Amino acid sequence: MKISIIGAGFVGATTAQRIWEKNLGDVFLYDIIEDMPQGKALDMMESAPILGIESKIVGTNRFEDCKDSDIFIITSGLARQPGMSRDDLLNRNAEIASNVAENIQRFSQNALVIVVSNPVDVLTYLIAHKTKLPKHRVMGMAGVLDSARFRYFIASELDIAPQAVQAMVLGGHGDEMVPLSRFATVSGVGIEHFLSKEKIEQLIKRTREGGAEIVKLLKKGSAYYAPSASILEMVESIVKDQKRILPCSAWCEGHYGVNGQYIGVPVILGRNGVEKIIELPLTEDELEALQESARHVAANVAKLNLF
Amino acid sequence: MKISIIGAGFVGATTAQRIWEKNLGDVFLYDIIEDMPQGKALDMMESAPILGIESKIVGTNRFEDCKDSDIFIITSGLARQPGMSRDDLLNRNAEIASNVAENIQRFSQNALVIVVSNPVDVLTYLIAHKTKLPKHRVMGMAGVLDSARFRYFIASELDIAPQAVQAMVLGGHGDEMVPLSRFATVSGVGIEHFLSKEKIEQLIKRTREGGAEIVKLLKKGSAYYAPSASILEMVESIVKDQKRILPCSAWCEGHYGVNGQYIGVPVILGRNGVEKIIELPLTEDELEALQESARHVAANVAKLNLF
Amino acid sequence: MKISIIGAGFVGATTAQRIWEKNLGDVFLYDIIEDMPQGKALDMMESAPILGIESKIVGTNRFEDCKDSDIFIITSGLARQPGMSRDDLLNRNAEIASNVAENIQRFSQNALVIVVSNPVDVLTYLIAHKTKLPKHRVMGMAGVLDSARFRYFIASELDIAPQAVQAMVLGGHGDEMVPLSRFATVSGVGIEHFLSKEKIEQLIKRTREGGAEIVKLLKKGSAYYAPSASILEMVESIVKDQKRILPCSAWCEGHYGVNGQYIGVPVILGRNGVEKIIELPLTEDELEALQESARHVAANVAKLNLF
Amino acid sequence: MKISIIGAGFVGATTAQRIWEKNLGDVFLYDIIEDMPQGKALDMMESAPILGIESKIVGTNRFEDCKDSDIFIITSGLARQPGMSRDDLLNRNAEIASNVAENIQRFSQNALVIVVSNPVDVLTYLIAHKTKLPKHRVMGMAGVLDSARFRYFIASELDIAPQAVQAMVLGGHGDEMVPLSRFATVSGVGIEHFLSKEKIEQLIKRTREGGAEIVKLLKKGSAYYAPSASILEMVESIVKDQKRILPCSAWCEGHYGVNGQYIGVPVILGRNGVEKIIELPLTEDELEALQESARHVAANVAKLNLF
Repeated sequence: MKISIIGAGFVGATTAQRIWEKNLGDVFLYDIIEDMPQGKALDMMESAPILGIESKIVGTNRFEDCKDSDIFIITSGLARQPGMSRDDLLNRNAEIASNVAENIQRFSQNALVIVVSNPVDVLTYLIAHKTKLPKHRVMGMAGVLDSARFRYFIASELDIAPQAVQAMVLGGHGDEMVPLSRFATVSGVGIEHFLSKEKIEQLIKRTREGGAEIVKLLKKGSAYYAPSASILEMVESIVKDQKRILPCSAWCEGHYGVNGQYIGVPVILGRNGVEKIIELPLTEDELEALQESARHVAANVAKLNLF
Repeated sequence: MKISIIGAGFVGATTAQRIWEKNLGDVFLYDIIEDMPQGKALDMMESAPILGIESKIVGTNRFEDCKDSDIFIITSGLARQPGMSRDDLLNRNAEIASNVAENIQRFSQNALVIVVSNPVDVLTYLIAHKTKLPKHRVMGMAGVLDSARFRYFIASELDIAPQAVQAMVLGGHGDEMVPLSRFATVSGVGIEHFLSKEKIEQLIKRTREGGAEIVKLLKKGSAYYAPSASILEMVESIVKDQKRILPCSAWCEGHYGVNGQYIGVPVILGRNGVEKIIELPLTEDELEALQESARHVAANVAKLNLF
Repeated sequence: MKISIIGAGFVGATTAQRIWEKNLGDVFLYDIIEDMPQGKALDMMESAPILGIESKIVGTNRFEDCKDSDIFIITSGLARQPGMSRDDLLNRNAEIASNVAENIQRFSQNALVIVVSNPVDVLTYLIAHKTKLPKHRVMGMAGVLDSARFRYFIASELDIAPQAVQAMVLGGHGDEMVPLSRFATVSGVGIEHFLSKEKIEQLIKRTREGGAEIVKLLKKGSAYYAPSASILEMVESIVKDQKRILPCSAWCEGHYGVNGQYIGVPVILGRNGVEKIIELPLTEDELEALQESARHVAANVAKLNLF
Repeated sequence: MKISIIGAGFVGATTAQRIWEKNLGDVFLYDIIEDMPQGKALDMMESAPILGIESKIVGTNRFEDCKDSDIFIITSGLARQPGMSRDDLLNRNAEIASNVAENIQRFSQNALVIVVSNPVDVLTYLIAHKTKLPKHRVMGMAGVLDSARFRYFIASELDIAPQAVQAMVLGGHGDEMVPLSRFATVSGVGIEHFLSKEKIEQLIKRTREGGAEIVKLLKKGSAYYAPSASILEMVESIVKDQKRILPCSAWCEGHYGVNGQYIGVPVILGRNGVEKIIELPLTEDELEALQESARHVAANVAKLNLF
């Protein structure tokens, strides 16, 4: 298994660390900044005798070293700054993503691609379009992270083990995310048995603003520990063919009434990428929120003038 | 178990991540920079549902939150910049370390302290002196990292699993380190059975310059992945009372002919800190190199005017 | 943490292996058969250098070696033979359990006790009664195992990762168990979105007969791999204070309309044992099935003539 | 990766458990006893939701289900009974091994084979001969186990973490084993720095009689926890291509003065099996002991009348 990570900033490097330390495959860490990915990779390799890791991690400035990767993870692009909306990043990051897409097309026609750069739903569309890869082999990471935050806030409120909480956040990554509290459970039991309506609303609001909360605290830069853990979960489900049900930005063709758009929905993730979209029985309100979120993404995709 | 990490820069934060992800105890991450340790800690906590972690990590700007810690890990101080020698950092970091030592003395009279800030052997002396803690409860991290690098270079040369290589680097951290190739083994077999004298010399030279190699590549900042893994190994040996034999900067009273000085020697590390110094049968040359290294540390300690 | 396992048969020894290999504490493995627990413990200890385990495991024939244990796990008693119902075991195993209870009372007044021997709900009552321990510190293992089987059957049917399935089996262990398919979810999504009513019924039936299915295949002896994993999950939730929600045989005082009886219900399991019983909103049918199950247990408790 | 284990007794089943729980591949557990391997495999699979395992384990009575396995582990054969020498088992187990060898040859011409059944060195020869596999793809497990025992006894004596001790036991498995105390180290430091000559002799004697010590305690049956951990270490080194240096029964062609014989020597174990035999600089006494051990094996091979 060869896994290439494009962009060796905090999200990219921490993702590399996680994937490599879990021995999921040989990791290639690419960045345009000279020597930097090599330095981070060497630093990691020097921890191998202590941590007992056998796979390799290689830093590089040459995209051709990522040739024939099984999985690409795209983290390159500008990070969101305090006060900046995710969409403000659109133009600059679209340019970077286009360039990456061309390189993937040149060197790895069989890859799976996980897009992390923001605005994620839009850039996932862009990269799927430019790489000409089958749509189910390109997906965006957002829902796993949003769900992880929601799960943590619930667990923290209830003072229980975070892993015991399941939850699902759909829709676009950003202000339009759609947290589905009806599907949030503790060991299979709905959270409404444990929390008041008001408290749940409060946790949803905090989830919606979860990225901004970290940005505000860090002052420079944005979150990377939870994002990289979220990518790890997706990669693990693919590499080990676990077929986990995870919310990802996936290509919808009529699902949930969304057509020809990438948007956050629950999917089965396995060795072949998005193997199936799960259609949950949503209420009309939930459905409308999801579709509104998709319209917002579509409007941004339109600005890219891809056709 | 309460473990406090002083300094939430790259070494401190990555150490916090490792200790917390291994569930070794509740971690407190302290820094004077406002909101930053809180942001990193929250980002980590939000990965807990995915990674399945139960312990807590708390970011703080108030030293009193670290009250009654079982272990302190001191990473605060300026990082070494390209071109800067470890000793150049002495004065600025001594001031920071003094301040930390006072806080430890005020809030936790029973702690174990692991010093990571550079120049490590000198600052370990300073902190032991100022905290008035028993000398065996204060130690410096250097040899584990230097040994890990030496082990990795050997494993890489032989194309074998890094964990199968054992090695021991003694003396001061810096240009005076004393790599003991005679005690470097692969599954218990001396490396001289696998590598030529010239090749071993080359690997020793690279080990000696291992920190600088990373600094040169990263351009800004220095290594943190392997250093944090090294700290993890020490903390694990203490928390789980593993009594591992690890090279640490430890208080010598006549050991190896060094008296009243902190210097890198092999020790047994357990719940009570440095439980014993192991005296290896060194050759005269090795012994002289170790003592020369100790004299260099002593000269720097003298500059601190502690008495 | 000191954890004593009473009975070094297959369930007991495999439980010891699991707890010890997870480094959850020092394990004492007790059996009346001379030398046997010592042999198994020594065999395990000899795997420690390879597996990298630091805690201790001690085999013993003297109950006093288990003095001051934090947790007791009772696996002693006859295993169910092919054709034998769980209740047939009652008289013989009650005698053994009484003896164990007296020993616990003598040597460890502060213990938590997990009863595994069958019929588990009845013997849990017996041991709670004889040790005079607070009722929330004594509990039976059954629901975690039954739920694990139900979860595996669901995952197997859907060809997805077993861990992604959550499910809850309540009631008595045995033919009266009450699998709650309404609370069975895949990543938080109800299984009725994936499986037909008939298929679900089939899986419930198989779960109900899960123990007998293994007995029939093994011919001599009964299951121990999944039972020991189930005990492990309970012990881990206690030792690490995870506060997981797990179905256990717990003391009900009016919960679910059951009064003064041990029966399988969802509880929060933490350092203090059963910290809370979770009352799910059951349908009338489900509630009636649970109460019928409780009546069956009560009838057997009556046969013990405890008062 | 497909790994088949022949023989579902204690060693075989516990090996299956370990390999499967480490997710090293899909495991097939074969035995001639009807239903039994199916029962053990099902019991294990039912622990998957709790333990979080994704690979499969299948029990079978049909050898053809093991078709195209990457690795075979041969544990079938009678276990050593109290009072029985390893060589007494020769004839009966040779017959069983011949049968297994024929099946391997029929169904998997590209396999690696690890022989565990006793007398291991003799049966390894037999199976290599009958399967006609390249000699470096067939090997016996003995030295890893003997070394693990030696390492545990040393660690136990010194009260340190067992994993920190390295040691090497060569020669035949049985009374002729050759423990090399000169290569026994603690974190790379020779044990002679920590233990007296008498104590070391005592530990060697106990190692030599390590198998019998367990048999004597268990009364019925022999060791399986440490043996299965030893097999796991070999399988892991192969599957992950770790190229660890481990003592195995390997085909010598002049190495250590042994020619055309399987005997315990240190080898590099990787994806292709025994990739290299490491020739340690033995003293004349050590060399003579190793050759004497080889002569004993050769005498038993001769009894098989293979030519």
